[in-house]
Amino acid sequence: MKKLINDVDNVLAESLSGFAKAHSDIVELNELPYYVTRKQKAQNKVALISGGGSGHEPLHTGLVGQGMLDAACPGQIFTSPSPDQMMMAAQEVESGAGVLFIVKNYAGDVMNFEIASEMLDSPNETVLVADDVSLPADHSTGRRGVAGTLIVEKIVGAAAEAGANLADCKALGDKVANQIASMGLALTSCTVPAIGSPTFDITDEQVEMGVGIHGERGRETLTMTDATSMVEQLLKAIDEELKPKSGQKVLLHVNGFGGTPAMELYLVYDIAAKYWQEKGVVIERSLVGNYTTSLDMAGCSVTLCLLDDELTQYWDASVHTANLRW
Amino acid sequence: MKKLINDVDNVLAESLSGFAKAHSDIVELNELPYYVTRKQKAQNKVALISGGGSGHEPLHTGLVGQGMLDAACPGQIFTSPSPDQMMMAAQEVESGAGVLFIVKNYAGDVMNFEIASEMLDSPNETVLVADDVSLPADHSTGRRGVAGTLIVEKIVGAAAEAGANLADCKALGDKVANQIASMGLALTSCTVPAIGSPTFDITDEQVEMGVGIHGERGRETLTMTDATSMVEQLLKAIDEELKPKSGQKVLLHVNGFGGTPAMELYLVYDIAAKYWQEKGVVIERSLVGNYTTSLDMAGCSVTLCLLDDELTQYWDASVHTANLRW
Repeated sequence: MKKLINDVDNVLAESLSGFAKAHSDIVELNELPYYVTRKQKAQNKVALISGGGSGHEPLHTGLVGQGMLDAACPGQIFTSPSPDQMMMAAQEVESGAGVLFIVKNYAGDVMNFEIASEMLDSPNETVLVADDVSLPADHSTGRRGVAGTLIVEKIVGAAAEAGANLADCKALGDKVANQIASMGLALTSCTVPAIGSPTFDITDEQVEMGVGIHGERGRETLTMTDATSMVEQLLKAIDEELKPKSGQKVLLHVNGFGGTPAMELYLVYDIAAKYWQEKGVVIERSLVGNYTTSLDMAGCSVTLCLLDDELTQYWDASVHTANLRW
Repeated sequence: MKKLINDVDNVLAESLSGFAKAHSDIVELNELPYYVTRKQKAQNKVALISGGGSGHEPLHTGLVGQGMLDAACPGQIFTSPSPDQMMMAAQEVESGAGVLFIVKNYAGDVMNFEIASEMLDSPNETVLVADDVSLPADHSTGRRGVAGTLIVEKIVGAAAEAGANLADCKALGDKVANQIASMGLALTSCTVPAIGSPTFDITDEQVEMGVGIHGERGRETLTMTDATSMVEQLLKAIDEELKPKSGQKVLLHVNGFGGTPAMELYLVYDIAAKYWQEKGVVIERSLVGNYTTSLDMAGCSVTLCLLDDELTQYWDASVHTANLRW
């Protein structure tokens, strides 16, 4: 295992310490339990809280700040945070307008956020994100929440900042979550520090299609081919789910998993943009980069979100976090 | 070779096409020869131009925009752009106040920018960046220009935007370049698409100290150990070069080479911040992320820049590029 770490038991602690120092103008870090909050707490605003296992940075800690999250609860790598973490974060940032939890659809995260929701005295709601179309819509535990989560957090974050109430934030989050679809492919597995070896085996000639963000295998292992052929499989699955018509405005997000350089991500973006432009779909907004990562995994995911004027306006609203800023 | 590409001959063309589409609100791409300019051309402002081999994205194309570069000239991967590219880019963005070339110290880049400088009718100056302290200051071809280049571009970009003239931009660039030091380490080699295999061999137990950003070997190959021990070798070399005193304000930049996730980069930042804070050095500003990359190489570099009030003010000035924005 080749990683810049000291001790597998301290990776999260040391990384969060560095993150909090590097962005001390934007965030504050609580230890025991870990959670990250805005340095400038909002007042009388719906408090947006997300969280999940670590290893997906900048999701979610890097998205705490004005215009986006009020708090993020990082669990150990690929491990759900505890209800106590969520509760304490919620109590710290709740400012009189209730709490909205934004949760990626994984059994552990869902269960622990449910417990926190029940324990919390303040009014609260939950938006579940399940945008990974590599699994069928009727999968037993539902589809996984992946890179579309950032889009939900950005859009609902802008609405909350503009004064939307808890019911409206919940409705907006559900609306966005229902018009996002994502799918990913991996060229390598990630390596979890505590395990020390790649989570799945893949040869130099193979690609894992429909991969998750925790080193789960995808829905099938195929032979490596050219980027266009591989990426178009993602695009077709997304297109079949959302069925954007000619003239439909969309946000196109190409996400890197952590080990793939910008040069390849922009090449993938080019393939995806051409695919939908040829169908008359209007790419109104774009985001390309490593946002929902899986440690050092090489590969990418593509996410499409159907836009309307309201969503575009919220997407464009100013945001000031460690890793997303405009 | 596991990469998301179609044809090794078209990687640059397809990647630039995607980049220009994804950021069509900020940049324009010229083809044959390739250069990227601001969509909104500046007027009566010193035109800042940089460039170099591709494979280091977001450096330099991702740094074109308000508050930073006016144009960037991308060569083929790890290959200098041609004097023609530089000339044509300069002619397009020169707006009556002259041209400042910001050049990383590599023989090919230096030679070609010199030719462009001589061919160009407009007044022009060049700032050479040679911040890599892994080589001795009296090295035959000088030290290499690495991640400190972004800092020169940001600070001089802000000064140019504020109306500084060519002589002042040149003097400021030289000043910044002289108070920046960087050094990097690699855990893996990068793989150049046209070659198809790693540029240097390194075992699972080795680390390459003082590595360059083109897959050059470092100054020594050592045995992998804990992050603190490895990173402190970078910090010591930088500290010996700049000798920041207690109370000195600095900008600390931890740069990823493309294959190392944010979690590890923040852990490295934590080590670096502690090192200088214990010496009483004041870390006024920070930047952590993949900015000066080497394709898919795993590893990082650390850069320190001595700050004064003028430099901090220019660093803080608004910037609106594809990959650096505040």
